[in-house]
This record gives sequence, C-alpha cells and structure tokens, in this order.
Amino acid sequence: MIVDSAVYRDGSRVQVDCGGHDYAAMRKTAAAEGGFVWVGLHEPSHQELAGVARAFDLHRLAVEDAFNAHQRPKLEQYEDSIFLVLKTLWYVDEEDAVETGEIALFVGPDFVVTVRHGHGGRLHEARARLEHTAHVLDHGPSAVVYAVCDSVVDGYTEVVDSLQEDVDEVEASVFSPQRTNDSARIYTLKREISEVRRAVLPLREPMRRFAQGTVEAIDGDGAPFFRDVTDHLTQAAEIVETLDTLLSTAFEAYLAGISVQQNDDMRKISAGAAIVVVPTLIAGIYGMNFDRMPELAWRFGYGYALVLMATVSGLLWWFFKRSGWL
Amino acid sequence: MIVDSAVYRDGSRVQVDCGGHDYAAMRKTAAAEGGFVWVGLHEPSHQELAGVARAFDLHRLAVEDAFNAHQRPKLEQYEDSIFLVLKTLWYVDEEDAVETGEIALFVGPDFVVTVRHGHGGRLHEARARLEHTAHVLDHGPSAVVYAVCDSVVDGYTEVVDSLQEDVDEVEASVFSPQRTNDSARIYTLKREISEVRRAVLPLREPMRRFAQGTVEAIDGDGAPFFRDVTDHLTQAAEIVETLDTLLSTAFEAYLAGISVQQNDDMRKISAGAAIVVVPTLIAGIYGMNFDRMPELAWRFGYGYALVLMATVSGLLWWFFKRSGWL
Amino acid sequence: MIVDSAVYRDGSRVQVDCGGHDYAAMRKTAAAEGGFVWVGLHEPSHQELAGVARAFDLHRLAVEDAFNAHQRPKLEQYEDSIFLVLKTLWYVDEEDAVETGEIALFVGPDFVVTVRHGHGGRLHEARARLEHTAHVLDHGPSAVVYAVCDSVVDGYTEVVDSLQEDVDEVEASVFSPQRTNDSARIYTLKREISEVRRAVLPLREPMRRFAQGTVEAIDGDGAPFFRDVTDHLTQAAEIVETLDTLLSTAFEAYLAGISVQQNDDMRKISAGAAIVVVPTLIAGIYGMNFDRMPELAWRFGYGYALVLMATVSGLLWWFFKRSGWL
Amino acid sequence: MIVDSAVYRDGSRVQVDCGGHDYAAMRKTAAAEGGFVWVGLHEPSHQELAGVARAFDLHRLAVEDAFNAHQRPKLEQYEDSIFLVLKTLWYVDEEDAVETGEIALFVGPDFVVTVRHGHGGRLHEARARLEHTAHVLDHGPSAVVYAVCDSVVDGYTEVVDSLQEDVDEVEASVFSPQRTNDSARIYTLKREISEVRRAVLPLREPMRRFAQGTVEAIDGDGAPFFRDVTDHLTQAAEIVETLDTLLSTAFEAYLAGISVQQNDDMRKISAGAAIVVVPTLIAGIYGMNFDRMPELAWRFGYGYALVLMATVSGLLWWFFKRSGWL
Amino acid sequence: MIVDSAVYRDGSRVQVDCGGHDYAAMRKTAAAEGGFVWVGLHEPSHQELAGVARAFDLHRLAVEDAFNAHQRPKLEQYEDSIFLVLKTLWYVDEEDAVETGEIALFVGPDFVVTVRHGHGGRLHEARARLEHTAHVLDHGPSAVVYAVCDSVVDGYTEVVDSLQEDVDEVEASVFSPQRTNDSARIYTLKREISEVRRAVLPLREPMRRFAQGTVEAIDGDGAPFFRDVTDHLTQAAEIVETLDTLLSTAFEAYLAGISVQQNDDMRKISAGAAIVVVPTLIAGIYGMNFDRMPELAWRFGYGYALVLMATVSGLLWWFFKRSGWL
Repeated sequence: MIVDSAVYRDGSRVQVDCGGHDYAAMRKTAAAEGGFVWVGLHEPSHQELAGVARAFDLHRLAVEDAFNAHQRPKLEQYEDSIFLVLKTLWYVDEEDAVETGEIALFVGPDFVVTVRHGHGGRLHEARARLEHTAHVLDHGPSAVVYAVCDSVVDGYTEVVDSLQEDVDEVEASVFSPQRTNDSARIYTLKREISEVRRAVLPLREPMRRFAQGTVEAIDGDGAPFFRDVTDHLTQAAEIVETLDTLLSTAFEAYLAGISVQQNDDMRKISAGAAIVVVPTLIAGIYGMNFDRMPELAWRFGYGYALVLMATVSGLLWWFFKRSGWL
Repeated sequence: MIVDSAVYRDGSRVQVDCGGHDYAAMRKTAAAEGGFVWVGLHEPSHQELAGVARAFDLHRLAVEDAFNAHQRPKLEQYEDSIFLVLKTLWYVDEEDAVETGEIALFVGPDFVVTVRHGHGGRLHEARARLEHTAHVLDHGPSAVVYAVCDSVVDGYTEVVDSLQEDVDEVEASVFSPQRTNDSARIYTLKREISEVRRAVLPLREPMRRFAQGTVEAIDGDGAPFFRDVTDHLTQAAEIVETLDTLLSTAFEAYLAGISVQQNDDMRKISAGAAIVVVPTLIAGIYGMNFDRMPELAWRFGYGYALVLMATVSGLLWWFFKRSGWL
Repeated sequence: MIVDSAVYRDGSRVQVDCGGHDYAAMRKTAAAEGGFVWVGLHEPSHQELAGVARAFDLHRLAVEDAFNAHQRPKLEQYEDSIFLVLKTLWYVDEEDAVETGEIALFVGPDFVVTVRHGHGGRLHEARARLEHTAHVLDHGPSAVVYAVCDSVVDGYTEVVDSLQEDVDEVEASVFSPQRTNDSARIYTLKREISEVRRAVLPLREPMRRFAQGTVEAIDGDGAPFFRDVTDHLTQAAEIVETLDTLLSTAFEAYLAGISVQQNDDMRKISAGAAIVVVPTLIAGIYGMNFDRMPELAWRFGYGYALVLMATVSGLLWWFFKRSGWL
Repeated sequence: MIVDSAVYRDGSRVQVDCGGHDYAAMRKTAAAEGGFVWVGLHEPSHQELAGVARAFDLHRLAVEDAFNAHQRPKLEQYEDSIFLVLKTLWYVDEEDAVETGEIALFVGPDFVVTVRHGHGGRLHEARARLEHTAHVLDHGPSAVVYAVCDSVVDGYTEVVDSLQEDVDEVEASVFSPQRTNDSARIYTLKREISEVRRAVLPLREPMRRFAQGTVEAIDGDGAPFFRDVTDHLTQAAEIVETLDTLLSTAFEAYLAGISVQQNDDMRKISAGAAIVVVPTLIAGIYGMNFDRMPELAWRFGYGYALVLMATVSGLLWWFFKRSGWL
Repeated sequence: MIVDSAVYRDGSRVQVDCGGHDYAAMRKTAAAEGGFVWVGLHEPSHQELAGVARAFDLHRLAVEDAFNAHQRPKLEQYEDSIFLVLKTLWYVDEEDAVETGEIALFVGPDFVVTVRHGHGGRLHEARARLEHTAHVLDHGPSAVVYAVCDSVVDGYTEVVDSLQEDVDEVEASVFSPQRTNDSARIYTLKREISEVRRAVLPLREPMRRFAQGTVEAIDGDGAPFFRDVTDHLTQAAEIVETLDTLLSTAFEAYLAGISVQQNDDMRKISAGAAIVVVPTLIAGIYGMNFDRMPELAWRFGYGYALVLMATVSGLLWWFFKRSGWL
C-alpha cells in the first residue's frame, strides 16, 4: 500500500500535478527544483515495490530485503544511495508485551523511500513533525533519515521505560510476603528484553557512522543530531542490560523465597503434628490394659486425662510459637 | 564419488567431448574459452581426490583437510586460488536433531572443485539454480562460491527456525501445569545449539572478507551479495545466542517449577495426614480405660464419636482447602 | 534557579558591577580581562536556561539535554566549547540507599556554565576549594572542569566505601548462625551497584580523553590531574565489580545456608517424632486385648511400662544427640 | 639426561665423529656444511643444561625457564634465535586423567635444542617422522619446530577426543534413571578442561605469528603448515569450550534430577504412610470402649474389620498408583 | 620512617660522608659520579616524604598517592621520571588469609625512592639480592625497578600457590563423605582471589610497557627481564582465574551434596518411621474390642503378636536396607 508520497523543496511540501504514482515524473520535478521525493509504502505488494524500485533505481538485494522484512538493523551503502533497516518497537499495554515492526529506508540525493512493516505511528509522527519544521526539512533526505531514526529511538526509550515498570512490579511481587508464581513473568520479560536488544544493539553501528559524518549520503551537518540519537540508543541499551541483570537476581531471590517458604511450611507442619501426636501417646498410655493403673479408678480420671492432653498441646503450641515455628 | 563435473562458459553449461574424468583436458578447454570447470565430489576416495588435485594443482594440506573432513569453517588463501571449508547443517524432523556435513571448495581462476561430506541437498540446489541464472553464472567461479555459501547459509536459517520452534515447545512444556521432565530436552537443545554455533561463527570472518572484496580470487562485484550472506549469518548467530539464553532461563524456571511443585505436594500431604491423625487421636481417647467416661455409656455414644471424627476431619478439610493447601 | 555566578581573573573572584544576570556583560568583562565567567544553575527553568544559552551561544541539543537531565555521562565537543555530563552519587545513611543527581557543564574559552540536578554538595565544595587555590583557578575553565570532576569522583569513592560496608554487613548476616532473610537486601545492593556502574563506567572515556590532552578546550597541563581522576574512577569501578561478584557469591552462600538449615530442621523434626512414636508403639502393645499378657498382671506393670517408655525415649534422645540430629 | 643429539644436512642425519657431547664441535660441523644440530634433553641436570647453553649461546632467563619448567606456553624472540615453550598433554586411560608435560625449544639458524619434562612420546615421534621425510627436514630448524608443534597439537586433539568421550559418559549417567553421583566426576572433568585450556589458549599467539611468517627464525615457506597447526589448535580450543559449557548444563540437569528424585521419593513415602495410617485409624475406632458398638458383637466382626482395613489400603494403593505417586 | 638510603655506583654501595638524611647532597654526589641514590621509606610521615619530594623534585600528585596508599597498581610517566605503584601480597598461614601492602617507586635517572606500606620482606630481599649482583645493579635505577617488580611478583606466585592448596583442601572437603560446611570457606577464598586479582591484573600493563622498552626511564636492555616478570604475572593471573572457576564449580558440587544428603536423610527417616508404624498398626488391631477375636484366646497369642511385629519390622528393615534407603 502506498501511504503517502510527496515532493519537498526548500523545507516544505510541494503540490505536484502528476498523479501520486508516477514516481519518475515526481523525481524529475524534484531534482529539477533542488528538492526531493519522499515515498512512503506500507507492506507493499511485489508490484508496487517493483515500480518504485524502477523509478529510483534501487538495488535488487535491498528491495528483496525491504519486501521480506525480518532483517536485522543494518546500513548498506551503494554508490550514491544508502539502504537502512530499523526495527520499530512498541509496548502493548493490554498484553504487557513488546511488539516489533520494521522500517526500511532507501535514501538518495533526491529521494527517500520508506517501506514499513507493522505499526505505523512512528513514521506518521516523523513526517508530520518534519513538515512543521522547515529549517530541518530543508536539509533534504538527511533530515528525513534523522527524523525517522530519532522517532524510532524515542520509541525504544518508551518501551524500555515500560519494561522498567514491569521489572519494578516483578520485584515487588517477588519480595511480597504472598506466595506468587513469578517465574513465567520473569521469563516473558527476559524474552522481551532479548527482542529489544536485537533491535537496539545492531543499530548503534549505523548511527555511529552517521554521527561521524563518514556516510556520504548523509549531510555532515547532522552529526551532532545523530550523536544525540546514538546517546539515546546507548542509554536504552544500558538500561536494558541492567534490567536483564536485575531480573536474573530477582529470579534467584524468587528461588530463595520458595526455599524459605518450604522451610517455614515444614516447621509449621511439624509443630502441628507434634501437637496432635503427643496427646495420642497419652491416650495410648491410658488405653493400656494393666490391672493396676491407679488413674483409671480416679473419680475425675477421664477429666484429668483430657486436661493433661490439652495442657501438653497448649505447652507445645506455646513453645513452637515462641521459637517461630508456628 | 564424482557427482558431477562440467565446463561452464558465458553463463551456461558446455558439452565437452572428453570423458568426465579427464580434468586436465576439461581445464584446458575451459581456460581456452574463458570458461571454468566445476568438479563435484562426494566423499571421494584418496585416489579420486589425488587425481583432481593433480589436475588443478591443489595444495597438499588443503587436499588432506578436504579428505578428512572434521575441519572448522575456514578460508585459506594460496597464490591464485582459495580453499574454503563450510559446515552444512540440516534438521532431521523425526529425531528433532541437527546433523552436520561439510563442503570444501577449491576455487581458482578457471575451476571450482567442491568436496562434500554428508547430506547433499544444498549443493545440488545451488548448481541447479545457478545453471538457470546465466547472468549470475557468467561471473565465473565467484558466482559458484556465492551460490554455495548462500545456499548453505539459507540452510542455517532453516535449522535455526526449527530450533526456535523446539524452544517454543520447551517453553510451553516448562510452564504447563503438568509435571514434565524437560531437563534432558533442554540439554539436547543446548548441545545442538553449540553445534550450530560452531558452524556459524567461524564462517563470519571469511564472508566478511569476501564482502570487503579483499580476496583476490573472488570478484569484487559480488561484494553486496556476500554482504547479504553475512547479514543472514549474523542474524542466525544472534538468534542462536538468544535461544541459548532463553533455554538457560527456561531451565531455571523448570527448576523453580520443581520446587514449587514439591512445596505444593508437601502441603497436600500434610493436610491429608492431619485429616487422618486427628480422628486417630479421638479414637485413642475413647479407647482409654478410665472407669468413669460418661460418653461410653451413652446410647448413641459410638455414633457420636464417629460423627465427631467425621466433623473434625471435614472441618480440617475445609480449612486446608480454604488456605490453598489441598 | 541561579545559584551563583561570578567572574574570575588571575585565580580569584572579581567583583563585577553589572547585575548578576546580565551574562553577556559579564562575559564581555571577563573576556576583556583574560578571565572567565562561571555561572551556576540549579534545576533552571526553561527561560533561565534559554537566557544563559543565548549569552554563551550554547548548542541547542546540549541545552535540551541539560534541561531534561536523565542523560548518561558523556562528552560532546563543539567547535570551541565542550559539553560534559556527569552523574553525581551520594549515599543516604538513613535508607542505606544510593541517590543520583546530574551535573552538566558547558565549557568555553571564557566561560563555564554548570547545570545541576539534585543534591548540590559537590559543586559548592568544588567552587569553594577552587576559590582558595588561586594557582589552580588561574588555569581558567579547565581548572573548573578538573575541580568538578575530582569532587564528583571523590563522591563515587565515598559511595563505594559505604557500599563496601553494606556488603560486609550482608556477609556477616549470611554467615551468622541466626536465620536471616538476606535476599531482599542483596537484591537492593545489586540494584544500587548497577546504578553506580552506570554513573562510573561511561565517564571513563571522557576522563581518558582529558588525560591524553586531546580535548582542545581543556588545558594540556592538566593531563596528570585528569589521569589522577581516571585512576580514582577506575578504582571505584573495580571495587564495584568486586562487590557485585562477592554479592553473587554471598547470595549463593545464603541459598546453601537455607538448604543446610532445612536439612538440620528435618533431622531435628524426625528425631523428635521418633521420641514420641516409639513409646506410642509400646502403649499400643500393652493396649492389646490378649487374654494372657503376663505384664498386665504385674504389681508394678504400669510403672514398668512407663519406665520402659521413658527409657526408650531417653535412649533415642541420647542416640540422636550423639549423631548430631538434635 | 641427553636423549639424542645429531647433525642434519640436506634432509638427513649425518654421522659425526666427535663425541655426542661436544656440542661446540657438532655446531661447527653443522654450520660449515649448511646443516644444523638437534640436541634433545630430558629433564637435564643444571650442569648438562649449562653445557648446552654455553655451546649454543642461549639466553640466561630462557635457560632458567627451560630448567624449572612450569612455564606457560610462550614465544620469546632474541636477536637471531627464538625460545618456545609448549605444554604437552596426554590422557591416562586407567585414571581418566589428563597429565601435562612441557617442551622447551631453543631455535637458532644452525641448531635446535629441545628440553623435555614429562612424557616423551610426542618428541620421539616427531623426530622419527622427520627423519623419514627428507623434503621436510631439508627446511632446517623450522621443520623441527613445525614437526614438534604439529605433534604436540595432535596430542591436544587426542586428549580433547578422550574428554569428549568422558563428557558423553557423564551425560549418559546424568540422564540415566539410576541414582548416580556425578558431581565429583563433573568437577574433575572441569578441572581437566581448565588444564587443557591453559595449555592450548596461550599457544595460539605464537602459532599465529609463525603462520604470518613474521618470526625471523622461522622459514616463511612454512606459513601454510603453521596455519594448519593453528586451525587444529583453534578447533581443540572450541571443542573444549563447548565441553565446558555442556558440563555446566549437565551439572544443572543433575541438580534438577536430584530435586525430581526427591519429589518422587516424598510422594512415594507419603503414599506408603497413608496406606498404613488409615487402617490404624480403623483399628483405633474398634478399640474404643463404648458400651454399644454393634460391630463388636457381630459374628464375623473381626474379619469384617480386617477386610475393611485391607480394602481401604487397597483402594489407597490403587489411587496412588493411578496418580503416579507410587 | 626512613629505612635505608644509600648511593650506588658501578654496581656497588658507596659510603657517603654526608648524613643519611641530606638527600640533596647524596643526589649531587651520586650524579657527579654517575651513580644513583636509593632512598627507602616505610610509611613515612608527611614531613619525611615532603623532604624527599623536595630533594628529588617529585610530582605533587604522585607524592600524595604514595602517602595515602590504597592506590591501584599503575605507572605514571613524567618528563624524565616515572612513578610506579605495586601491590604486595603475602599469605598469613595462621589465618589462611591474604594480606596486601603497597610499594610506590619514584624512579629518575639518578635516584630511586621506594615508599612502602605494610609488610617489608620483599623490598629487603630485593635490595639485599641486588647488592650481591653487581652486574645487575650496574644498570642503575632500572635494575632496582626490575628487582622490586621481580620480587613482588614472586610474592604473587607464592600467594597463588598457597591459594591453590586451600582450593585443594576445599575440594577434598566438599567431596568427602562427612557433612561439612564449606560455603563460608569458599566465600572467603573467593574474596581473597578477588583481592589478588586486583593486585595482579592492573600491573600487566606497566610490565608490558617496560618489556616493550617504550618507557624512557627504563633501560631497554632490561626488556627480556621484564618480559619474564610479565610471564610470571600472566601465569599468576591465569591460575587465579582457574581457581576462581574451580571454586564456583566446587560450590555447586557442595550444593548438590547438600541436596543428595537431604534426600538420603529423608529416605532413612521414612524407612525408620515405617519400621515403627507398621507394628503400631498390628498393636492397634489386637487392641480392638471385638467379641470374637480367636488370637486373643490363644495360649501364646501375645507372644505370637510380638513375634509378628518383630518379623514385620525385620522384613521392612531388610527391604529398606536392600533398596539402599537405610
């Protein structure tokens, strides 16, 4: 699906009279006036993508990658254009889950083609914000690359913040006095963290190269901005590592908690057993059939026996209570 | 065994009149016409390999390695030829197991010799696909190297996907309420993952060198294609690492599950014991031999005692049920 | 809030007649006399910061970072100025907790702007100490950077020392014979250590660059001093790593302690049960209804039975005591 | 002890008329004829070694190292000679243990001195094989270095294979249904693996330098051969790492096995207890002394009670059997 | 405290007539005759150190470091002098503990100042040995640096050997059939190992630089000697890493041992309980009050019951013995 395609010049969107799908004409218009075309595709069909590829002369392998998605983040440099793949992440509150999408960018001197798979918020937002900041958009395709990267990385930060909250919840649950079953929750979080890691870590290399200004297709003036993106990326990566480590420790604490719980239970059970077993012994004694057992003939012998049992049980109860077993 | 040997020129297979085993003649023909010979061997005898080695002037040590198999993936550069070893991986569904084979390639300006150990699907496929894409085959031996590497690495991706499914199954089993014995399964998966890792990781270096175009025997034009192979390789490696980590976490969750299970069992057992032991005490009491025990003379004393026992047991059952012990 | 702003020249504070908020004028005065301005802000409003940014021509992104805080430690180099972010750490005794703040420094040839978030002791101290050591202050803005870094890193050392004490306490608790619940404590310490790590580790790179004298805005003469700061930083980092490792080991020892405890309890419980159960068997035996049971008719049969029970229990008690079960 | 010393020229052993101990004379002979001397020592006395050191002008520190043994593998380069230390490994089947020895080589343009500590098979073999392959021996001292390294590294491969078998055995034992005590076995294997690692890993650096042909004393023509040795070394190192990881996983599986076993035992015990305790309750009931208990007067009351007990026990047995507790 | 100060020339100690505390004079004498001064201080007062610093023109920060101690090992290079900090380690047998001290060296072309904190054996030894080997001492201050480093690193080796013995003891204890409480011991050893690591690892960098001969103040001829020190350092580091890993494994084996022990105990306890509980059931049966229980009237009914109980108990005992539960 083609989502939006437009020509930009001097920092603002230009109304072009050719149909929205004649990319070659759009490109010619843009190039002639020193502007650029930005074509936005969403999970395009093979045909749609082929048309765009022809108009902008995109590399066969890159087009295939953009079509298939399921790439790892990467930067591919061709003669005068680049191919950049980013993973998008967003947090679905209802399911406490991290979902992933993908954005592929083809960037040349007079065009940007974005191919999106999955959730689209980030790209819309980036385009909208850009169209309102002419002095940024004026830097051409590089500005688009920056806007997209910045927006995607902001998304990482949001996801990482949500994960942080989840970890805080797990932590609270692990150390709560209630019996909780946290291992599935911890496992899921670890799985999501590994997904975040796979989106975040490989992106650092491309961002670093943009920040060093060594990628020809990217305007060197943008270096501080990409450095900023790199910083956010690194911070997200560091927090994610920290969360992973904390989860491991929380898991061990959870295991320790189970053991402590089991020990407490065992003590409680034993104490309870003792309270029943000792009177049973007493009952057994007065159930013996000796000819001469003076208590048996006592007037309140039975009462005495019951009181004895109750007393012993009470003493045991008190003893175990005091030693913390009950 | 010699599987297939042919001369290729201008991107297509050439019918040569010399017998399929006169390599020197084939090579001469190929060289004269600007083509190349591709000899395919499968677990060759010492003699077969020696003949080929003589015809193409292969290095003694490399020939030995190709014969012995059990090499680690590597790239060996000689004056004007290279020796490349790849591990092939395939997943045997019936046994949920990963099996490994080996392909050794000798590549010179006018020849390719492939020596295969184990399963052959990948090589057949690569040759067949190449023979149908003249514009690729036209690049000579480099195209063969690319086709083989691409096909082998595609195999890794398939194996990794199967392992991912296995890990998903293990995960489901670990967190299922049933008692399952997952530790052997997890161990086996970890063992297979380490096998995959040993095939995948050492291959990255050769692929990177091909992708940088610094290996003389490999056509520089193929760089983006080898970069693509490298990407797939890296992705396979990353997923395998993630799976390994997840398995470790799943194992810990499995251990935690056993502990929780044991604790639950202990509570159930204790509750059950209490339900039997307390009536036993009551029976003991009415088995005492005191002269004066009024209940004994009651008309429905016996019934009363039985009802008392049942009531106490019932109360205990209800109590333990409510506190989650039963 | 503007905390303090002053002009310094030849190593001492200069009384300037323009109001404390006309930064442009202060800067002009300072520049004219070969001195520099030091403006100290504490959690400034957007407006306050914007005024300062205008006067000293600070980079937009850096100003944003200084305003938002929550940056990771970093060094950003612009044409003739630098932007440095440091994390401050301090230990709150009452809560046994590490708290973090942030100091951002903008440093140019004739100005230093410090923006502080959180606790301020370190900056006050640095300024006070500097104003008393003219020969240091004389080196201009570099001296301020050194003083701030040195003071902040001293703070790390203090925090690390406090953590070391906490770890010693945990260690004592884990190996004490009392039953203690150390897992929450260990978890909290690990969490704090990861916070310290995130403040300390990323600062090493900027300090190393100052120490190598490759940052233009920082006087090369200060290299040995920054090397000293780097040393303290590295030492803090090393100790923190050691503590982390020790905590992991202490945690495992804690787990082992629980197991040992459980085993001891189980033995104690079993021994106790045996002491009750064996007399119960004896009572049961003499409760049997056989016609001819000679002991039943003994004069002191009952007494004999009680003594028998007591003796058996005593023997069991002695036996279990001797084998260490009780 | 001097084991063997000989002069080699043009790839074969030369009969020299001076006594086997006049090294200076041997060296002169060898140098004059373009050959080299190979002196083989086994745990030499201080005096023996001093004599050799004088004749070949060996570096004091290297001689000390060769005498003391207990060095780590290393390569020391002097002006025109090198000093190489290798660890030898062999597997003692009777004890399932890895033993280590040491070979020190002094290599100059016209001599090789080998000092061996421990088991000697590898060196004998290397010399014997060399004396039968004139075209290799013809390359002078470099050939000796290659032959020794190759032989020693072959030994690593054998040891690693034996360890692999041991790990397979441990694995089988861990996952066998029998109760086995595998922890000591796993510990020993881990200890041996760490010994292998300490022999293998530090050797990679010297071998890599030989393979790059940057060590003057080693003939550059031998590079592919040393590359081959490096490959085997790397493969041994990789397998050893894999084994170490597998052992860790096997250990965890062993721990899990103990827990599962304990849980199974607990269930079995509880089921057994229930089968005894419930009939005891019944016996207790019919041991009560109520005046009116109709069953007591039944003709087959006793039989009925016994049958009741047996039935209840049987039902419990069947119930526990069905639920997998027995 | 000034321990010893002397002028050395041509490899031997020179008697100087100025008092032992006039360092400036000593330095002049030494410099004039091409010798050097070696001043040895032990935990000097501020004043003592200041005097020495003035005489030899030592850097302010380095002097502070030498005074405070608690530095990490490091090498600081100044114009024509260096500042080296070493940690000394020694093993206190009575306490099975590793203790640490510190030696700081200031080395210039005509002087060496050593500042020692803690145990002094190593420095005395180094000076004594040097004064007896004129050909070494003749190399001037570099010889002193070598002698001190060599001696300190020898100390590391000794400590590491003692730790190795401790680990062997722990290992024996863990795998002994006795119940032992090894976790505190293992923890302490791990703590000591981390102390050794912090002394050993940071020293490798300075030693490597000395060994490469790139430190101006250190005579390039000493390179092989410093290479030797580096080797010993690396070996100590490697052994310490191995010990750390082994201790971790030993700890896990200890945990496994506790679990196995607990399982064994549980089985023993259950078997014991069964031996008592089954006869109790029998006693209960013959305690029932049925009118017609033929055994009750038997002549040897009581004896028969006792024999029955004993037989059943005996059979149970034999059964549990055979199945390994007792």
